Amino acid sequence: MRKYLLIPGPTPIPSRVSRAMQKPMIGHRSPEYGEILKRVVENLKYLFQTQNDILVFSSSGTGGMEASIVNLLSPGDKAIALASGAFGERFVKILGSFGIEVIPLRCEWREVIDSKLVARELDRNRDIRAVFATLVETSTGVVNDIRSLGKICRERKVLLVVDAVSGLGVEELRTDDWGVDVVISASQKGLMTPPGLSFISINQRAWEARETSRIYRFYWDFKTYREFLEKGQPPYTPPVSLVFGLDEALKMIREEGMETVWERYKRLAKATREGVKGLGLELLAKGNFSNGVTAVKVPENIDGSELLKVLREKYGVTLAGGQERLKGKIIRIGHMGYIQFKDILVALESLEKALLSLGHRLKKGEAVKRAKEAYK
Amino acid sequence: MRKYLLIPGPTPIPSRVSRAMQKPMIGHRSPEYGEILKRVVENLKYLFQTQNDILVFSSSGTGGMEASIVNLLSPGDKAIALASGAFGERFVKILGSFGIEVIPLRCEWREVIDSKLVARELDRNRDIRAVFATLVETSTGVVNDIRSLGKICRERKVLLVVDAVSGLGVEELRTDDWGVDVVISASQKGLMTPPGLSFISINQRAWEARETSRIYRFYWDFKTYREFLEKGQPPYTPPVSLVFGLDEALKMIREEGMETVWERYKRLAKATREGVKGLGLELLAKGNFSNGVTAVKVPENIDGSELLKVLREKYGVTLAGGQERLKGKIIRIGHMGYIQFKDILVALESLEKALLSLGHRLKKGEAVKRAKEAYK
Repeated sequence: MRKYLLIPGPTPIPSRVSRAMQKPMIGHRSPEYGEILKRVVENLKYLFQTQNDILVFSSSGTGGMEASIVNLLSPGDKAIALASGAFGERFVKILGSFGIEVIPLRCEWREVIDSKLVARELDRNRDIRAVFATLVETSTGVVNDIRSLGKICRERKVLLVVDAVSGLGVEELRTDDWGVDVVISASQKGLMTPPGLSFISINQRAWEARETSRIYRFYWDFKTYREFLEKGQPPYTPPVSLVFGLDEALKMIREEGMETVWERYKRLAKATREGVKGLGLELLAKGNFSNGVTAVKVPENIDGSELLKVLREKYGVTLAGGQERLKGKIIRIGHMGYIQFKDILVALESLEKALLSLGHRLKKGEAVKRAKEAYK
Repeated sequence: MRKYLLIPGPTPIPSRVSRAMQKPMIGHRSPEYGEILKRVVENLKYLFQTQNDILVFSSSGTGGMEASIVNLLSPGDKAIALASGAFGERFVKILGSFGIEVIPLRCEWREVIDSKLVARELDRNRDIRAVFATLVETSTGVVNDIRSLGKICRERKVLLVVDAVSGLGVEELRTDDWGVDVVISASQKGLMTPPGLSFISINQRAWEARETSRIYRFYWDFKTYREFLEKGQPPYTPPVSLVFGLDEALKMIREEGMETVWERYKRLAKATREGVKGLGLELLAKGNFSNGVTAVKVPENIDGSELLKVLREKYGVTLAGGQERLKGKIIRIGHMGYIQFKDILVALESLEKALLSLGHRLKKGEAVKRAKEAYK
């Protein structure tokens, strides 16, 4: 049975990337590695839409989130974290773990936090040093308004740190135009590469914050990475084979063009939402739908984990379930990374069959029909 | 030109491992990933020769070193670091970065630190909480006496933390028999897998130290990894493709048997040393030669970096140079990981030609002859 993986990361790997990762191993202190690293960083700048420094770490995206905190803040500092889902809450947890006085702004796990609330909170607490936000809240499929947060933070000279692990390369993000000081991403979502790499873009204001930050750190120290990068090297042994893959994935994205890629995901997302409605299901979010992942409510008479199991075992289709408070209540269809429209159709057809087998009533063929119309 | 990579990590990847890494991506919350993780941890226990917990991190070996510090100690604690080369010095640096009062024990970068000195220092400073040592000091090719350090630390109820990044699976290491509390390793050396994964074994005494440690941490927190591991999951997205590869590499090692593998490296190392002597070159170390990497002095009339360049560009053979104070003064031949005796012969033959072309006098054919005799 052919397998279909439609989760919000890790995503399927294109054969070009897979082949690149099979290249014979090379030393990470070789001139050859230095050239690849340089090219990867240049192409990441294009992806981040930035002229800022970009550093590459051997870690998951969460490691990148931690790095952004330990380089910018000091114990006792105040920071806002926008927590509209599981990944926003992760910022709250990490900040707390490092002795930061964190002010979480929360909402229902299907909404976005109004930027005006952030502005009001910043005006009330003039000593807040940074705002931590998530580009795409993967747990709810909602995209946040980073552009307006950028404006609010710039006006108030507060640092804005954005977790774009889920979203970079999928969702419009203009680091420099929007004035985002620090952006974190990782290899396994929009970048079509296996997990194991994280990247961080750092502007001048963030470098200045690095100078006064007093959290103990070694592995994550931005300064060490920049010093080595200037010599064309990583400070510690990097995941060489993953960097080979990333290099190829970035070439693919550049060939297609950033705006074309964003447009492609927008169509996939729209087709997915329409297809889901055609199944008679309800979307979790009310609006601000992300282009990388769609969260769908599981009908009350159906067991969410049973639905995922049937899809996986009977149809070879892996979707994601809900996280934490949404566990069992939603399913999430990932359409970021190397996902084609035909994969979406397979997912919808399989969902139709699985739902029917579990007693859900729907109009046969409607999902695929609506998805096709929307995709045109 | 066929390329030969004989550096002390990253090492060449066997085709079985390379193929395993091409398997289609899977979700890290799937039952399938849980099974692989469980098997990998079981096989790592065999490799570490331990019944202790083993945790898997997405990071380089240096990340694993940092993890061992932030989980065991608190700022102001005293610790000894055995620094007989660049990697021992790395422990000194990381410990210092986290506010630990570090007592470095040093020696010439070709020797081992006498265990008696460690015992004397521990007896003089009864408040030392931990000793940090390196199994194989990759920068000098010297193997340290972990067994006797284990005895000394156990008698004095001091924690022993061993960096076995360079050495696990190559050099005899008996975690439980020798009483090593924490052992750190990584994927890219004896484990024949690309870099990007680190592993840490943790015994009961170390878990107890974890309970009182007061360094800020999140990503490296042992407890989070153990809690998730009990559910068959990683806490954060793991490098799935590398875990596929590691799984296969560990199977290969189990098939061959740990002691057979150790014996194989011992023969490769001996052959390398004899071959090097046949070239009229001098070994850096006086004894305690590691089985994974051999450091060789560059003759005074020859430029070390020129020698490496000729080897790489003219013969396709990549060896490593010296690090820090040994830069330009030595070359290092890696024979850990997926290296065959024929690779060693190619390296020796190429070294012979390169040395001749740079004006070094030697007896032609002697290196290969002596290596072959030693390998028998």
